[in-house]
Amino acid sequence: MPPDLAAQPAPPPASGPPLQDLRWTLESPLVLQSGETLSPVTMAYQTYGALNAARSNAVLVTHALTGDQYVASTSPITGKRGWWEDLVGPGRIIDTNRFFVICANVLGGCIGSTGPKEINPATGRPWGLRFPVITIRDMVAAQVRLVDHLGIDKLFCVIGGSMGAMQVLEWATRYPQRVFSAVPIAGSYRHSAQNIAFHEVGRQAIMADPDWCHGNYLEENKVPKRGLAVARMAAHITYLSEVALHRKFGRRLQDRQALTYGFDADFQVESYLRHQGYTFVDRFDANSYLYITRAMDYFDLAQENGGILANAFKGTPVRYCLISFSSDWLFPTEESRAIVRALNAVAANVSFVEVESDKGHDAFLLDEPEFHQTLQGFIDGSAEALGLGARAAKP
Amino acid sequence: MPPDLAAQPAPPPASGPPLQDLRWTLESPLVLQSGETLSPVTMAYQTYGALNAARSNAVLVTHALTGDQYVASTSPITGKRGWWEDLVGPGRIIDTNRFFVICANVLGGCIGSTGPKEINPATGRPWGLRFPVITIRDMVAAQVRLVDHLGIDKLFCVIGGSMGAMQVLEWATRYPQRVFSAVPIAGSYRHSAQNIAFHEVGRQAIMADPDWCHGNYLEENKVPKRGLAVARMAAHITYLSEVALHRKFGRRLQDRQALTYGFDADFQVESYLRHQGYTFVDRFDANSYLYITRAMDYFDLAQENGGILANAFKGTPVRYCLISFSSDWLFPTEESRAIVRALNAVAANVSFVEVESDKGHDAFLLDEPEFHQTLQGFIDGSAEALGLGARAAKP
Repeated sequence: MPPDLAAQPAPPPASGPPLQDLRWTLESPLVLQSGETLSPVTMAYQTYGALNAARSNAVLVTHALTGDQYVASTSPITGKRGWWEDLVGPGRIIDTNRFFVICANVLGGCIGSTGPKEINPATGRPWGLRFPVITIRDMVAAQVRLVDHLGIDKLFCVIGGSMGAMQVLEWATRYPQRVFSAVPIAGSYRHSAQNIAFHEVGRQAIMADPDWCHGNYLEENKVPKRGLAVARMAAHITYLSEVALHRKFGRRLQDRQALTYGFDADFQVESYLRHQGYTFVDRFDANSYLYITRAMDYFDLAQENGGILANAFKGTPVRYCLISFSSDWLFPTEESRAIVRALNAVAANVSFVEVESDKGHDAFLLDEPEFHQTLQGFIDGSAEALGLGARAAKP
Repeated sequence: MPPDLAAQPAPPPASGPPLQDLRWTLESPLVLQSGETLSPVTMAYQTYGALNAARSNAVLVTHALTGDQYVASTSPITGKRGWWEDLVGPGRIIDTNRFFVICANVLGGCIGSTGPKEINPATGRPWGLRFPVITIRDMVAAQVRLVDHLGIDKLFCVIGGSMGAMQVLEWATRYPQRVFSAVPIAGSYRHSAQNIAFHEVGRQAIMADPDWCHGNYLEENKVPKRGLAVARMAAHITYLSEVALHRKFGRRLQDRQALTYGFDADFQVESYLRHQGYTFVDRFDANSYLYITRAMDYFDLAQENGGILANAFKGTPVRYCLISFSSDWLFPTEESRAIVRALNAVAANVSFVEVESDKGHDAFLLDEPEFHQTLQGFIDGSAEALGLGARAAKP
């Protein structure tokens, strides 16, 4: 159990040294959606703050495709601050002086949880492509076990953006009695054809790299760097809006006064993309990229409910807050709106805000005042409704 | 000179056997925008219809990134009908009974015109990356020579979509006395940061393929098929709208009843993309892809005119017709509108229509009634204005 931050005299700095890495291995195998059984399953996770006596103040944060468990503390891998420290931490909207925050690396991931790069104890070799295809449902099933292990019956809130939003929806629809409030941000109830297409480009780029070795690169002591970098570059474009790219780079040249009439990175945007691609390969596993994108592609909450999305929410007691961003073209507002319509159809408790932002999909990771205000209002209101008391005034 | 189709008793079928391939080599070297000199330069082209006695009925069609000169006749390479036969042919909007239509493979291309896959006579080896970087200006300069060679002083019309629109703008602004009317469709006056980014992904995918051999694959008897296919897949997504992808494929499965929990093409959209990628490599040269995308990236009509786009059009006698498509997110309407504003600023003769279509960028290649009506009106009006007479009633 982490130290009780609430008991400390002053909140620690937002970005302190890395916390101790937490690991827990499920006591029994996990039966996957595919019907396969996976064992052992280890979950790598972080917690922040302290669980209250009533065990009612837990917030589960679910991460996106290339995210990790370091939501509010420095990543020991990249040395960068937690990816959502703007939102999560002492005195923040998800106040770790008040809430017990849990964030776990997803099943299939590569930051410590069981995934294709880990050793399969049955063979003594990395799983590679012998790892079973997992789904969002499987990711959440593993999280449920972890939450059980932490002694939490009901989460105060499950919150996440992008693929995180898919996990939130899975939690809230499959385990409605275990979730008080749910905040799917910049997400969807199913992956669109265009999004599957972009993922397929990424997978094909990885598989086209001879160093991928049909998935066996770890055993071959190789890394499919070029393929993974190309996959990341293509994906990265989809995370930004055209306006954001234009404002950030426009057609400005990179460290030169004139075009060079060659294939070097003449333009800043090229240099930026290459950097995004080639730094990504140092922190991410190519096979994990295949598995996690596949899990997103497979997600379809409507199809699972006879094609009628509202059926997923029938009789739900969960308080929902949907948030989308106006310039997000990867998970456009229309996708969130479809969820809101389905929730309205079953008279569920739902708030919805489309945040005006020109920063594209990545806005959910950025300091967006309207987003943060919306979230603050929802979290505080939900905490009061649950009887967690009003928020302390800011220091 | 091609046979005079207008003299024939009945128009030939829209898709007859391939016409004879035409080739012409410039009499003197071409001085490129980069300052380099290129020689010899051969232009591969097709013509349709007959030049009239006044030599005033010539229409130059400029093609897009992966287009070719077979605008209105079967391609001998793919066996497919001409890429714009809906628009160009006997009795069509660009009526080859009435107009003399020219279409040439661009400089840097791979369908017969001088490009990186051709043999450099000075070395006896393929140009490869020793081919100089060419620009839209260079492509048009080569076309100007061809038009001179065909004995045409002034073109009745220059028309093209996408990269074709860039060539149209180059023609109309650099050679305004040689162009009566100009129709840039689904284009822009400069390549945006997002578009440069997508091109860079494609180039990186090609260069990441070891079979690319640093550009020397022809000499090494290899083909960077995987890299080029990935480049094509990424680009292909940008040619369609999300709505079009959704309607065409949605989340439908490919030849299977259920998900396979693997990395095969479960979804139709994956199968379609793979097909697009892997058929493309049979008809296109990877280095050409590098050079032509680079030419598009470099295009910036505003920057060339001191940052003020209107300066490019000052005093222009050219009649312009701009056409964009509402769901085109690669070359959004806003880009065409910026050109229209610049033309209005110098009181030029300009029509503009944003065609309502949900088919995305590729709409310019498809049977879009509003697009065709707009074009018909503009072509007929311009022909009358030039004294080419009214259009014959449809048979």
